[in-house]
Amino acid sequence: MNKITILIHCKDQRNIIASITNFISKKEGNIVYIDQHVDREQNIFFMRLESEFITSDFSTEAFKEAFEIHLANKFNMKWRIHSSAVKPKMALFVSKYDHCLYDLLGRYNSGELFLEIPFIISNHNDLKSITDNFNIPFYHIPVTKDNKEEAENKQLELLEEYQIDFIVLARYMQIISEKLIEKYPNKIINIHHSFLPAFVGAKPYHSAYKRGVKIIGATSHYVTEELDAGPIIDQGVARVSHTHSIEDLIAKGRDLEKIVLANAVKLHTNRKVMVYNNKTVIFS
Amino acid sequence: MNKITILIHCKDQRNIIASITNFISKKEGNIVYIDQHVDREQNIFFMRLESEFITSDFSTEAFKEAFEIHLANKFNMKWRIHSSAVKPKMALFVSKYDHCLYDLLGRYNSGELFLEIPFIISNHNDLKSITDNFNIPFYHIPVTKDNKEEAENKQLELLEEYQIDFIVLARYMQIISEKLIEKYPNKIINIHHSFLPAFVGAKPYHSAYKRGVKIIGATSHYVTEELDAGPIIDQGVARVSHTHSIEDLIAKGRDLEKIVLANAVKLHTNRKVMVYNNKTVIFS
Amino acid sequence: MNKITILIHCKDQRNIIASITNFISKKEGNIVYIDQHVDREQNIFFMRLESEFITSDFSTEAFKEAFEIHLANKFNMKWRIHSSAVKPKMALFVSKYDHCLYDLLGRYNSGELFLEIPFIISNHNDLKSITDNFNIPFYHIPVTKDNKEEAENKQLELLEEYQIDFIVLARYMQIISEKLIEKYPNKIINIHHSFLPAFVGAKPYHSAYKRGVKIIGATSHYVTEELDAGPIIDQGVARVSHTHSIEDLIAKGRDLEKIVLANAVKLHTNRKVMVYNNKTVIFS
Amino acid sequence: MNKITILIHCKDQRNIIASITNFISKKEGNIVYIDQHVDREQNIFFMRLESEFITSDFSTEAFKEAFEIHLANKFNMKWRIHSSAVKPKMALFVSKYDHCLYDLLGRYNSGELFLEIPFIISNHNDLKSITDNFNIPFYHIPVTKDNKEEAENKQLELLEEYQIDFIVLARYMQIISEKLIEKYPNKIINIHHSFLPAFVGAKPYHSAYKRGVKIIGATSHYVTEELDAGPIIDQGVARVSHTHSIEDLIAKGRDLEKIVLANAVKLHTNRKVMVYNNKTVIFS
Repeated sequence: MNKITILIHCKDQRNIIASITNFISKKEGNIVYIDQHVDREQNIFFMRLESEFITSDFSTEAFKEAFEIHLANKFNMKWRIHSSAVKPKMALFVSKYDHCLYDLLGRYNSGELFLEIPFIISNHNDLKSITDNFNIPFYHIPVTKDNKEEAENKQLELLEEYQIDFIVLARYMQIISEKLIEKYPNKIINIHHSFLPAFVGAKPYHSAYKRGVKIIGATSHYVTEELDAGPIIDQGVARVSHTHSIEDLIAKGRDLEKIVLANAVKLHTNRKVMVYNNKTVIFS
Repeated sequence: MNKITILIHCKDQRNIIASITNFISKKEGNIVYIDQHVDREQNIFFMRLESEFITSDFSTEAFKEAFEIHLANKFNMKWRIHSSAVKPKMALFVSKYDHCLYDLLGRYNSGELFLEIPFIISNHNDLKSITDNFNIPFYHIPVTKDNKEEAENKQLELLEEYQIDFIVLARYMQIISEKLIEKYPNKIINIHHSFLPAFVGAKPYHSAYKRGVKIIGATSHYVTEELDAGPIIDQGVARVSHTHSIEDLIAKGRDLEKIVLANAVKLHTNRKVMVYNNKTVIFS
Repeated sequence: MNKITILIHCKDQRNIIASITNFISKKEGNIVYIDQHVDREQNIFFMRLESEFITSDFSTEAFKEAFEIHLANKFNMKWRIHSSAVKPKMALFVSKYDHCLYDLLGRYNSGELFLEIPFIISNHNDLKSITDNFNIPFYHIPVTKDNKEEAENKQLELLEEYQIDFIVLARYMQIISEKLIEKYPNKIINIHHSFLPAFVGAKPYHSAYKRGVKIIGATSHYVTEELDAGPIIDQGVARVSHTHSIEDLIAKGRDLEKIVLANAVKLHTNRKVMVYNNKTVIFS
Repeated sequence: MNKITILIHCKDQRNIIASITNFISKKEGNIVYIDQHVDREQNIFFMRLESEFITSDFSTEAFKEAFEIHLANKFNMKWRIHSSAVKPKMALFVSKYDHCLYDLLGRYNSGELFLEIPFIISNHNDLKSITDNFNIPFYHIPVTKDNKEEAENKQLELLEEYQIDFIVLARYMQIISEKLIEKYPNKIINIHHSFLPAFVGAKPYHSAYKRGVKIIGATSHYVTEELDAGPIIDQGVARVSHTHSIEDLIAKGRDLEKIVLANAVKLHTNRKVMVYNNKTVIFS
């Protein structure tokens, strides 16, 4: 049996839901999940739909072609269709912090994540032994003021060679270049260690401590050119008090960061995220 | 323009979503919201759908009739159709605690709730002055060991006279009789002051204190014959510590109770709750 | 029996805790609560202490005098001593939103709050009927561009006449003047409808909607000259999603605002808040 | 410099705080942290105090002796004094689930935990490769109906040989025997995968699913003879909905379990937990 996930957005129009369900019905598909959202401010329609096809001669490619001609063009849709048979390939970028790395690799090893990790890139060598234990290739690509472009080209080569689908910055402590962002639009997931939009940029726990907040947070988002300003995928929070030092905030924050980043990875690989207007629609 | 909300559940079957959307399309309805859920354990299909009809001669009654004949019978559906023009009528039952009463009446007065409150029933007179201030009729129906049936009959008379749609027990400190429950199945909302199924029955904060829990909760649920065992609509929690006395738990709990009860009332009146197998499906 | 609460802060010094406890012991006081905090960054010592005195001739004034001479001067302390016999007097400032007003008055009426409300000030007449129902004097003091100083003088007169201890801005929609802030330093509590420091200023729910955050918040803080930048007393948060309109955020936010404001009022009147460096120490 | 942590509980008595602080002052100790709690129901006094001693000839043993003679006996205290120089030794018991193991070892490796892990015991061999990667000795001690006593004796031998201070059951799927519990009273920490006291015993996520709860939880507690009924150290919760299958609850629960267990380990090793009446006092 074939199972596909369809993600659509377009201007909201009459009869659009009936047209889509009809189309699938005629292709002998059985809809097993449908969810939709209309942004009333912008008048945009969003839909996520899972459908099963039991006919032995079903071809995802042929379905896509028909979908485009008979449906997408008519409603002027932006759309993606994913076969559930294909595991997305994730590249992990890390620096020196290990908590998100341990957490993601632990989940990966336990079979919790629907993805492959062909390799890990780091600008430092510190975490090599961890990735060795998990038997994942580790590429040390140092980044300095002088070698930025060279380093980036090495990264791009690896990403292309392994046909990477999306990138996860697991506390990678370097600014990602425009070139990379343009090649992977809404496909680079970052974890920022604050409750965005509060405390953009470096040392957010220091700023949170200084401001005396009573709750700290972490935010996973897609990387865009503006720093820490991309579409938010998930956020988490934890209570703190005057008794917590900056080090305590950092330690508490680690627990938030790993959970919030893992949530984003799962939502992304389960094809539950759509992006528009620098915001996300997260389907259930 | 007419707007209706359709709630359906039945055995999961092929083509059911397409059949429903088609039917509405043929009736010249425009689907503005669709959400569905399949319980894979029980193989049950649930759907909530909102549709607008711009034709001037649209009749909800005629639509219901056609829906039953052409769709519901075929798929053996259980279904409800609500017109968005009709505000549900809520009867409030209270005793001596005033926090849920203040909260609901405050929201009601501000226009936050889509409902009418024709009257309030209480087995005590303590809260009469509050309801007077809000200009809502107050019926004092004392309940004793000896007059239970009589009291209940008075309640039933009022409920019928005012054509009440659902009942909210806002910390009403009496057991509701089988007769009332049978007349209003999944239409009596209670707020229990614990995180069910922990601490069923009387004095849950005392039990929570004794057990030394670090989090307390409140639960809104539909009343069934078994005490505090009905389908859960919403739950809320709050952190507590050894520094909290029983009185502190009770005070903290009041804030949970009023929020969790108000959420349940809003979900119910927005037709977002379906009940089956003593559980709820809560649509977004 | 007399009970007092002592709040102290000063440079951290050796033997300070022993000196304080000794002093109270010699005055025949029994310490029933002690909590302390040291800010290691700034090397500041904070303490909150409750003590009971059973001697019939105990005088809070005499104790204060001795405390200053024998203890406070020696350690160069800033300190406050409150007798538990005295209820603080709170002035409520409101405009048009009623949810915080209903919530505070409901709690006040139920005896949950240790305070008196001599009067309510509003720049609009909308909420007069509510305060009438609770039998609290209502002063309508309109504020326009032209009458700001005059309005403020009326407010100050009332505050002095009734010997107000602290002010609560329950969604009061006017900027408080420097003069008032200087007269009531760390004694004016505001509720801001965002998770500060995100979304300072007007229309924070609109900004939160636009940014696409997944969690919204509310913040109670003391008013200082810089807008929404004063010491934070409490914060609360709630999950939201793409399905929530701005109106939904506002409705969800109301529930946060009233709880977070009430918490701040309780912490303040229970003498559990100390302010320094634009931050708060909140004792348990 | 020497630093010690003192934990005391006894009947509440007049002048107890002053007596303790005085005693330390006379020993030339500087109190750097003091917190206390009085259980008004039971009239029990609890205190946690950290003190520094700069005298070069300070001896923890001599201090303990003097403390017992001059203070503890007088007030009939139960007390413990820990030197901050000594890292507690933790034995980890696991079975087949790896998420808590990964999480604890990741934290251990990063230096987040103040403890030593001399060895890991498991009744299965599944997780050996993980502990190998972290270079921690792994003892496979199978437990069957027939060899229970023998297995337990092997465990006890190891615990004694390595002078273990406390045991952590990181999803260890065996009932701990009375003998072990008696040897390590309030020193065996378990993580139960429900919001206790709801869903005691096996398969709590299945029960939570069946009951249709809207929030799930995890509870860390000390092991006592009664199953899942020991003193609660920490609890965590997460929202769930009808869309979550049992497998989803289990996956969401894993994140709760690891955080809540790690919190308990940190509180225990930081000497912040006191137990009485089957409840805990958790100092800040």
